[in-house]
Amino acid sequence: MVTRGLIIGRFQPPHRGHIEICKKIMSEVDELVVGIGSAQESHTLENPFTAGERILMLTRSLADEGIDLSKVHLIPIPDVNNNAIWVTHVVSLSPPFHIVYSGNPLVRRLFKETGFETKKPPMIKRKEYWGTEIRDRMIKGKNWQELIPKAVVGVMQEIKGIDRMKDLSKTDYLLR
Amino acid sequence: MVTRGLIIGRFQPPHRGHIEICKKIMSEVDELVVGIGSAQESHTLENPFTAGERILMLTRSLADEGIDLSKVHLIPIPDVNNNAIWVTHVVSLSPPFHIVYSGNPLVRRLFKETGFETKKPPMIKRKEYWGTEIRDRMIKGKNWQELIPKAVVGVMQEIKGIDRMKDLSKTDYLLR
Amino acid sequence: MVTRGLIIGRFQPPHRGHIEICKKIMSEVDELVVGIGSAQESHTLENPFTAGERILMLTRSLADEGIDLSKVHLIPIPDVNNNAIWVTHVVSLSPPFHIVYSGNPLVRRLFKETGFETKKPPMIKRKEYWGTEIRDRMIKGKNWQELIPKAVVGVMQEIKGIDRMKDLSKTDYLLR
Amino acid sequence: MVTRGLIIGRFQPPHRGHIEICKKIMSEVDELVVGIGSAQESHTLENPFTAGERILMLTRSLADEGIDLSKVHLIPIPDVNNNAIWVTHVVSLSPPFHIVYSGNPLVRRLFKETGFETKKPPMIKRKEYWGTEIRDRMIKGKNWQELIPKAVVGVMQEIKGIDRMKDLSKTDYLLR
Amino acid sequence: MVTRGLIIGRFQPPHRGHIEICKKIMSEVDELVVGIGSAQESHTLENPFTAGERILMLTRSLADEGIDLSKVHLIPIPDVNNNAIWVTHVVSLSPPFHIVYSGNPLVRRLFKETGFETKKPPMIKRKEYWGTEIRDRMIKGKNWQELIPKAVVGVMQEIKGIDRMKDLSKTDYLLR
Amino acid sequence: MVTRGLIIGRFQPPHRGHIEICKKIMSEVDELVVGIGSAQESHTLENPFTAGERILMLTRSLADEGIDLSKVHLIPIPDVNNNAIWVTHVVSLSPPFHIVYSGNPLVRRLFKETGFETKKPPMIKRKEYWGTEIRDRMIKGKNWQELIPKAVVGVMQEIKGIDRMKDLSKTDYLLR
Repeated sequence: MVTRGLIIGRFQPPHRGHIEICKKIMSEVDELVVGIGSAQESHTLENPFTAGERILMLTRSLADEGIDLSKVHLIPIPDVNNNAIWVTHVVSLSPPFHIVYSGNPLVRRLFKETGFETKKPPMIKRKEYWGTEIRDRMIKGKNWQELIPKAVVGVMQEIKGIDRMKDLSKTDYLLR
Repeated sequence: MVTRGLIIGRFQPPHRGHIEICKKIMSEVDELVVGIGSAQESHTLENPFTAGERILMLTRSLADEGIDLSKVHLIPIPDVNNNAIWVTHVVSLSPPFHIVYSGNPLVRRLFKETGFETKKPPMIKRKEYWGTEIRDRMIKGKNWQELIPKAVVGVMQEIKGIDRMKDLSKTDYLLR
Repeated sequence: MVTRGLIIGRFQPPHRGHIEICKKIMSEVDELVVGIGSAQESHTLENPFTAGERILMLTRSLADEGIDLSKVHLIPIPDVNNNAIWVTHVVSLSPPFHIVYSGNPLVRRLFKETGFETKKPPMIKRKEYWGTEIRDRMIKGKNWQELIPKAVVGVMQEIKGIDRMKDLSKTDYLLR
Repeated sequence: MVTRGLIIGRFQPPHRGHIEICKKIMSEVDELVVGIGSAQESHTLENPFTAGERILMLTRSLADEGIDLSKVHLIPIPDVNNNAIWVTHVVSLSPPFHIVYSGNPLVRRLFKETGFETKKPPMIKRKEYWGTEIRDRMIKGKNWQELIPKAVVGVMQEIKGIDRMKDLSKTDYLLR
Repeated sequence: MVTRGLIIGRFQPPHRGHIEICKKIMSEVDELVVGIGSAQESHTLENPFTAGERILMLTRSLADEGIDLSKVHLIPIPDVNNNAIWVTHVVSLSPPFHIVYSGNPLVRRLFKETGFETKKPPMIKRKEYWGTEIRDRMIKGKNWQELIPKAVVGVMQEIKGIDRMKDLSKTDYLLR
Repeated sequence: MVTRGLIIGRFQPPHRGHIEICKKIMSEVDELVVGIGSAQESHTLENPFTAGERILMLTRSLADEGIDLSKVHLIPIPDVNNNAIWVTHVVSLSPPFHIVYSGNPLVRRLFKETGFETKKPPMIKRKEYWGTEIRDRMIKGKNWQELIPKAVVGVMQEIKGIDRMKDLSKTDYLLR
């Protein structure tokens, strides 16, 4: 039987650390499920990119690393406003998985209580592999390119991502 | 005819002050309606416990005090994202009530405008009877037990509530 | 430890069959959880009464039967638009329960798959103990009173329930 | 003080009967509030037109009749999934109104219970002034133009409304 | 053909700057669409007034300025929890518009990407024409009247707006 | 540049006709986006399977046909209660696509109006390739296996799909 590992993140945007983790997990399981959290969010400072854009960024980055995409499932996960049902919500949207990788103690607790095996994901060396840092560099025009895969840099250009982030930084929210 | 008093709180968790207030209100009315607010919330620092857990905590605490539970209605109240319809929402979920007890001037105003009699709930002596203080003590391992009814301490042990709170304190939100 | 049985219905309105079932279940468990389904619905032909009105009807009917209300939990359950998470949703709103009583094969399957013991509720003799039949009699002015507890008849008068049902029957939906 | 009358409909599409009613109501009150119900619905057989399109249809039709538009408020009313709070929802979206005109007994009941004066709207002579009839004629290519104001015929052309309706009639719902 | 300009704001409350902008836009287009954002919000410090109250404030203020209300459409826009679909949401609720006026770079970007012409609204001289400043003055009892149209002052009195704001300032949120 | 074609269905369950269409589309474009509609639905007669189960069924069926899965994107699409924003909703969840294949005239119209190229999907020969027929056979124990890919038969066994469908057929809805 196929063993699948789940990793969940917001991937705003995917960075080199994410790709490293995915590769290490894939050396431990047969298939990988990548849950793309807060899928309904976009065009905010915390969540600048749509789920579709993040799927494109991940697909290209994983392909560039020679990862067999027939063994990877990218699943957008919209938020639910009730943490107590979040695990069930993820389960209903995803192909069956068996091991949950998360650095977040609460996530591990919630899945463990539901009967899943959980693991801390393998360590990533650089502390810059962190979404907040990368989004901050994007707004300030610092060197963000070194922290994310080349494929993501490419998508950023296609979607004019830096322009969007700069516009987002000039306003706290949509003047609705 | 039966006169019912309404008190609404989040009860995260119920503390000794809540129980005192309930007892005093029950000396003024025939029956008590306890609205458990933000019922859909759980597993966050502000709202660690599910509605079901809070109902269990309240039921046992009130029973321990010898309160006649056939005269108490515990009603979970999910939030609505529109304050203008909140009073009507509460009314639709609850058995008929006549007096609203609240320390919150806005709550009293909203119910008064809809035609309800409103009262400030009786004063509670100790300032530690305050959810934020109690949740903070739980995370820091300080003496939280003295502030909440014995029955709540018992439920906390059953549901491993302190472990959950500590996990919650290590992460701002679910890494979705 | 306390054993709790769960029974879920819409109780539109509660009838004598419901009360009989509740009594029989209470002879098998320590405490009873009554889930009031489609709690957010009211003022439709299928769901004429609010959750609050149904709670009142149930409380009075159970009290009239001499049932110890400190051993009964009435829990309004709003619908979720996703059956896959419905069991978890019920669990999060309710005090812990252990046996689920349902005449509905799907409900039993869903709870069984989540690890609950499930049972068919004890049989009720009369086929008129059926919400659709009762609501139909109410609209047509036939003898509905014999099918529901006296306490429910009383609440119906207080809330002018028959007038509401007749208005509902003249219109398929709110002319919004 | 200004007296405002409220009339609520879905206006899918507005027809000559609607305009007649509006004119008669405006002879009884100072200002008219037109609630456009099910505002979030569009592109279905029952609700083919967006709220924005219906506002345009109504604005032009009322202007053509010489009605003073500074005395008319067109308010889109999205549905709420809870009839018990529907009246409050309408109140929160609308400028203050005092008399509710509705042919629907339930609507009149709900508003009356909340303290509003309610009236049956003045009778309209022709039975074809009925949304279902008009939408049916549109799909079948029968003479629908005679039932709706000229201005609505114009908007129908601009938005290619008949083409949309015919496409809708070939499919029960969006193949999502 | 009619050219319509769109301006979107929360209008909590409408101030003299808003009215000035509306007048200037109306000198550039045939008709004005005023989108009232966060329409579902009320009774919070950031959004004290209901959509209906804001419509009333705007209608009276614009009428006082002699603006032809048959050329103005006031459209309540409830929030959507997904910025990526916000433009489409606005389009579906509004009569057709062609030029979008916004001081917010993100709003202009979103509409521009969807094919709309966008413009910065004309400058307003005084920096006090700013909702946060006005709401702050209302709570502190400073001179807020000078910043808003006379008609808005009148509505504030009718709805006891200052009392509401003061109650709101004593509590961070509804004690739900 | 990569050209992507979009096909949307509910895939309850995927059948041989779906797979044939996917293969034909893939001979016309570089990559295929498969939108899995009504993603939030499951455990009903119309929508028996969760999004995760449908993803598993599709992944295995496409792999069995030797399709290169690195060129296929399976995207769960939850419903939105507003058809006017449905196209934008799909766009936000999906990697960029350029041609929309649909047998539904309304779907083609909606995408065409938004600027997409649309095509009727290639014809499928057998009229049994139709979800309603297949689900009906499943309930009645007729030969459903011949209509769906072997891989789907396998998943049906793993998830005890036929038992679930039979339970669903004995009850119109969850006795909530």
